[in-house]
Amino acid sequence: MINKQQILKKRPVGLPDKETWELIESKIQELNDGEMLIAQEYISLDPAMRGWMNQTRSYIPPVELGDVMRAGSVGKVIKTKGKTLFQVGDYLSGWGGVQNFCITKGENFHKVDPSRSSLSSYIGILGMPGMTAYFGILEVGEIKEGDVVLVSGAAGAVGSIVGQIAKIKGCRVVGIAGGKSKCNYLTEKLGFDGAIDYKNENVAKGIKKYCPKGIDVYFDNVGGEILDSALIFLRKNARVVICGAISQYNSKSNIKGPENYLSLLVNRASMKGMVVFDFAPKYSIAMIEMAGWIKEGKLIHKEDIYHGIENFRETFLRLFSGEKMGKLILKI
Amino acid sequence: MINKQQILKKRPVGLPDKETWELIESKIQELNDGEMLIAQEYISLDPAMRGWMNQTRSYIPPVELGDVMRAGSVGKVIKTKGKTLFQVGDYLSGWGGVQNFCITKGENFHKVDPSRSSLSSYIGILGMPGMTAYFGILEVGEIKEGDVVLVSGAAGAVGSIVGQIAKIKGCRVVGIAGGKSKCNYLTEKLGFDGAIDYKNENVAKGIKKYCPKGIDVYFDNVGGEILDSALIFLRKNARVVICGAISQYNSKSNIKGPENYLSLLVNRASMKGMVVFDFAPKYSIAMIEMAGWIKEGKLIHKEDIYHGIENFRETFLRLFSGEKMGKLILKI
Repeated sequence: MINKQQILKKRPVGLPDKETWELIESKIQELNDGEMLIAQEYISLDPAMRGWMNQTRSYIPPVELGDVMRAGSVGKVIKTKGKTLFQVGDYLSGWGGVQNFCITKGENFHKVDPSRSSLSSYIGILGMPGMTAYFGILEVGEIKEGDVVLVSGAAGAVGSIVGQIAKIKGCRVVGIAGGKSKCNYLTEKLGFDGAIDYKNENVAKGIKKYCPKGIDVYFDNVGGEILDSALIFLRKNARVVICGAISQYNSKSNIKGPENYLSLLVNRASMKGMVVFDFAPKYSIAMIEMAGWIKEGKLIHKEDIYHGIENFRETFLRLFSGEKMGKLILKI
Repeated sequence: MINKQQILKKRPVGLPDKETWELIESKIQELNDGEMLIAQEYISLDPAMRGWMNQTRSYIPPVELGDVMRAGSVGKVIKTKGKTLFQVGDYLSGWGGVQNFCITKGENFHKVDPSRSSLSSYIGILGMPGMTAYFGILEVGEIKEGDVVLVSGAAGAVGSIVGQIAKIKGCRVVGIAGGKSKCNYLTEKLGFDGAIDYKNENVAKGIKKYCPKGIDVYFDNVGGEILDSALIFLRKNARVVICGAISQYNSKSNIKGPENYLSLLVNRASMKGMVVFDFAPKYSIAMIEMAGWIKEGKLIHKEDIYHGIENFRETFLRLFSGEKMGKLILKI
């Protein structure tokens, strides 16, 4: 059996290009005792992956040159040797990487049940993006009923869930997304109270229009100019959740720092960073609550699925061009 | 009797110049019922005053053109008319402004006792700077024993108290100040564990040297490059207290935003703004505790006193040139 793997070959400056990864093919090695062979079905594509490619201190070590590109995934155990953590036929989610098959002892995998929710949902709404949204808006953003919540990257895997959870909790929710169709999706399908099209509108004017009394919580996935616009409209004791900075990940020059950060002082506001892994002990509680909301029709999730490990780079770049909607997934 | 007043004449762009204020002289008006005449003795000069001069939304309204320049002060009631809040002979601290005499009903003044602490201390260590330091490091910074605390503007009215309170609470404290004599003062007189001379040293290298394991709390009075250097060294769950940004107040171009703000994400850290007025209901508790520390010799405060309302502008500019040590005061 042949495995196809996307190997990190060269650290990119700016957007990943054709030299960044190399697709290699190799025969699958024999298993050692305790190892399992997973046939991967879905690979998760997330903006955070861009950060893992840089040779800088971060919340997890960088992907090393020559290693399979790190990615979350979900797949099925098709072979085991000796005593293993999981059995043939089990569906597992974990860090399978960008490859067709994965050999692992399973320490960083957990069992999922495709009869309860679609397999792909375990890397989406019930996976890292869903958990990020849940803990980010509830525990870091500390929303309460009546809050005005602004979210950027609002049509994305995290932002779309953030906004819906805030609606469930009785907040007024405004999203920022790129393009008319995404904005329509937010207001017409997801129940957002307003949507600002940053590609065609002035964001500051949009915030002023939809949040005339200012913002209590800003959930930031993008950084850059949009973060700066949001800071202008903070209310007293506002909370800014720094979840990501997708506009800056491929910057070839310095990161753009938020010029309006003194709004934190004037408004006694806070800006707090989050890493979803910190909440791992509570994932199961979140998954139960989220599954309930999905069942009740209060939480909608959209997946944008592309095919083939060969198309990994082109698909990954959609994260940064905005040419995707909801959770971006590569099907093997 | 003649009053001398510094009137805001023109909003400055950059540093205040000779056109910013006008010194006017006028006969003191007759008091109305309920009013008191205060002979001012000390006027407080604080970096925050620069912000009050801009025509922008902030935590208090800007000083209007034609008005006496706003400033904290301390003085003695020398005349009253009718029923007044305080009596002739009382010493009051409040918003007396940059003038020799002040007429007020006294709503924003409180009585102070010069037999318990020097009159000038009520606009310094027992006034706004002292309260800012106390609540900023204890309630916003949430220091605990063993924390590594970094403070900028460390030889200033606020920073010098912040560092000493952190020492009292069992923290390792490193200060950033301009010039060798200030740095020596921090380590030799105030008991700081280290001091970085930003005028002659690379700040990032200094932080690395004195805080090899990183920073738990950074108390920022300055903003700009120093804030950016500090962000690099945040530890997990670190707190950044945004108290001021003295390096940016006179900037003619855009404020410099912190380029390294994503360190908040990586380290699950928070950056929080503060305005001391929010803690007013608890000032008296803080003053009692601080007075105790002063008595025990654990808390040293330095005042840098200049003379004459005519010299207000030149003295005020010392806040930004760094040519002063501790609390800057104008004696009438």
